[in-house]
Amino acid sequence: MLDLWFSEFHAPDAKLSILVKEQLYSEQTPFQKIDFFDSETFGKFFTLDGLIMITEKDEFIYHEMISNVPMAVNPDIKKVLIIGGGDGGTAREVCRFKTVEQVDMVEIDERVVRLCQKYFPQTACALDNDPRINLIFGDGLKFVQDAPEGAYDLILVDSTDPLGPGEGLFTTEFYRNCYRALNDKGILINQHESPYYKEYAYEMRRAHKKLASVFSIATVYQFYMPTYSSGHWLFGFASKGLDPVKDADFKRWSEFGLQNRYYNPGVHLGAFALPNYVQEELQKED
Amino acid sequence: MLDLWFSEFHAPDAKLSILVKEQLYSEQTPFQKIDFFDSETFGKFFTLDGLIMITEKDEFIYHEMISNVPMAVNPDIKKVLIIGGGDGGTAREVCRFKTVEQVDMVEIDERVVRLCQKYFPQTACALDNDPRINLIFGDGLKFVQDAPEGAYDLILVDSTDPLGPGEGLFTTEFYRNCYRALNDKGILINQHESPYYKEYAYEMRRAHKKLASVFSIATVYQFYMPTYSSGHWLFGFASKGLDPVKDADFKRWSEFGLQNRYYNPGVHLGAFALPNYVQEELQKED
Repeated sequence: MLDLWFSEFHAPDAKLSILVKEQLYSEQTPFQKIDFFDSETFGKFFTLDGLIMITEKDEFIYHEMISNVPMAVNPDIKKVLIIGGGDGGTAREVCRFKTVEQVDMVEIDERVVRLCQKYFPQTACALDNDPRINLIFGDGLKFVQDAPEGAYDLILVDSTDPLGPGEGLFTTEFYRNCYRALNDKGILINQHESPYYKEYAYEMRRAHKKLASVFSIATVYQFYMPTYSSGHWLFGFASKGLDPVKDADFKRWSEFGLQNRYYNPGVHLGAFALPNYVQEELQKED
Repeated sequence: MLDLWFSEFHAPDAKLSILVKEQLYSEQTPFQKIDFFDSETFGKFFTLDGLIMITEKDEFIYHEMISNVPMAVNPDIKKVLIIGGGDGGTAREVCRFKTVEQVDMVEIDERVVRLCQKYFPQTACALDNDPRINLIFGDGLKFVQDAPEGAYDLILVDSTDPLGPGEGLFTTEFYRNCYRALNDKGILINQHESPYYKEYAYEMRRAHKKLASVFSIATVYQFYMPTYSSGHWLFGFASKGLDPVKDADFKRWSEFGLQNRYYNPGVHLGAFALPNYVQEELQKED
């Protein structure tokens, strides 16, 4: 058997490794290095600059959690902006809500989309087929800056970590522009790192402090994501007033009639019930 | 720098690895192989037959979750039986509840206790100092079989996986004996594996089906445990009638006045809110 291991470091002295059946493809784009692999347990997976983005086995967890939470808090969401999300999984999930009318998706690296259309049809499917999606290749920062005031009900920042092309998506300036581009019931969800390992917790805190300085409501919610660092991963939830727990309308959410594999109303509430140490890490001063 | 990696396989093709500063000690006992290591990120950790039992960094998560959940459901718990738990962490947490009067702890391998007293004083401390603890070295199966009917309010099975010395602690016969040794308000909590990787999910299902055949209430609850397989770990909750959610009395629990790092009432409720795929895995027929 081919003894080829992909490893991702979660700390300088801790790593998760996956036995690779085959490296399917590799490309250096102007933005990042993209690699596709095949494996037994996780199926196909791909990495950007050596970090796992999605695996066939568990991408549903991430994509259900980024989309269902805001849709339950505001079931009237119609206009959605996705920043990043080149694999198409976030767009696919958003499009399962039939009441959503428009999905603008701004991905900086066209190659991610094109390669996922080839290697990950399960996530990229909606990008080809759903007429509500406007796929734009460009800089998300610039796009949000130029967006009309109050244009969106929901912004989903489905980005890489705050290094490389994703860095600008973790700045106060970007969060201010998102605020402006959202209407009064607007919600921002963003990839928010992890509370467990030191360097991830540091980035988590930084993002949280910036978001809390811009939005009146800013918190995080958690989910079990085994192929991400520590398996304890977070999204940020920020809004101009809607509360992710008190305003969740599960009756209306259930009328969407979705067959989910991870998200349900109990999971929604539990996701916002953070362990004490996570609450403390969020507030810690650096 | 010494390039010495400890690896634990979570699937035949997936492993978590930790850079080891030093192997502190190694011993083969009549029951299992015990190894102690030191590391930067996790501090000291120890393994039984090559599987991580506890690390200094995150043992609090496991030990708070095994003890606080039943104590919130029945704050009148006075007599506790611990099976396994040789590192002492479970006994330490149970002894933080001042109303607990008696803790019988039955560990099959005295060497685990003696070595943890040396290398893990943070978890083993209560074993030396708390007069409520009766430390018994022997077979937990046999002990429960011989225990008087209705002798305990709570049984905590803090065991290894269902291989090697822990195997008998995953049998219907053992669960039946636990049932008999518990009084009418009795609760059984046991180490219940994980829903994510195939082989762990299989053991999870087997344990659940057996427990559900003996106890009128049998469910599982989840917690984020980054150094265990997939980081999504479970305890079983079984009882003769008390419901882990409806009967949770957080007012009385809060009167214990504990300073926790993980557990709080929101975490308690969220722990029982299982993702859809976990609920389905539990019910699946093999």
